[in-house]
Amino acid sequence: MFKKRDNIKEVEEGKYLEPKFDENGLIPVITSDFKTGDILMHGYMNDEALKKTIETKEAHYWSRSRKSIWHKGQISGFVQLVKEIRIDDDQDSIWISVDIGNGASCHVGYRSCFYRSVPLGKIDNLEKVKIKFKEKKKFFDPETVYKDEPNPTKL
Amino acid sequence: MFKKRDNIKEVEEGKYLEPKFDENGLIPVITSDFKTGDILMHGYMNDEALKKTIETKEAHYWSRSRKSIWHKGQISGFVQLVKEIRIDDDQDSIWISVDIGNGASCHVGYRSCFYRSVPLGKIDNLEKVKIKFKEKKKFFDPETVYKDEPNPTKL
Repeated sequence: MFKKRDNIKEVEEGKYLEPKFDENGLIPVITSDFKTGDILMHGYMNDEALKKTIETKEAHYWSRSRKSIWHKGQISGFVQLVKEIRIDDDQDSIWISVDIGNGASCHVGYRSCFYRSVPLGKIDNLEKVKIKFKEKKKFFDPETVYKDEPNPTKL
Repeated sequence: MFKKRDNIKEVEEGKYLEPKFDENGLIPVITSDFKTGDILMHGYMNDEALKKTIETKEAHYWSRSRKSIWHKGQISGFVQLVKEIRIDDDQDSIWISVDIGNGASCHVGYRSCFYRSVPLGKIDNLEKVKIKFKEKKKFFDPETVYKDEPNPTKL
């Protein structure tokens, strides 16, 4: 679909979009809040999701759990309006900056998926590294919003 | 090494670090500049790189091209001092916020790897989607800094 990658110089410093999709046909996507700069989530797109995101200006991902195109916000209403799309040097990852208004991004109910931090420093026991909650309160109740939808988190 | 994942509720809302490494033993990592909030790069860590990053407070990645632990800045001098590490809801991606001082992050010579943006809107020809440079000038000369190191970009 997109331009064929046949020259490293063109991939790195050229003017054409030549995204690299992995062996599963996916490219990783970083999503940040354009107002706060906070990272909201880390997802994946296939070629169709990337095309839809560029054209509709609303974030579309590939859901690895549902194995289908995922128009973010379709169920929750928390649509992501795309303000900017960036691509990295070797064109194997994407950064989108989005407007979620007064919404949230995380299926657990927090505004950002990255609601916990990992303390730095010497680790005594790798099996007991404690993490700290940085968002203290859920933004919405996932059981009300998602009802009987299966949880995308897998072990 | 890290705590075993045996309960989805604990992964999502528990207090322990239970990172999920993929079939190659890797977890994706978003790296942002703690001063500007800009995304600098997208990389991967294995369990050892994550442990080293937590303990040394300097970013360590897994280099997929060299197939070895990669202490960022070892060659270029552009070490990343880690200010915060966050983990996402299902603990399968990491966000680190780093201080690169007056340095850069991208092997092509730009400050951020995401130096090009993808214009939004209707696509007429998928093979000719033009991208725009957002950083106008290289921050350093990669040929001087990396000398004979092989280019990590692959087709």
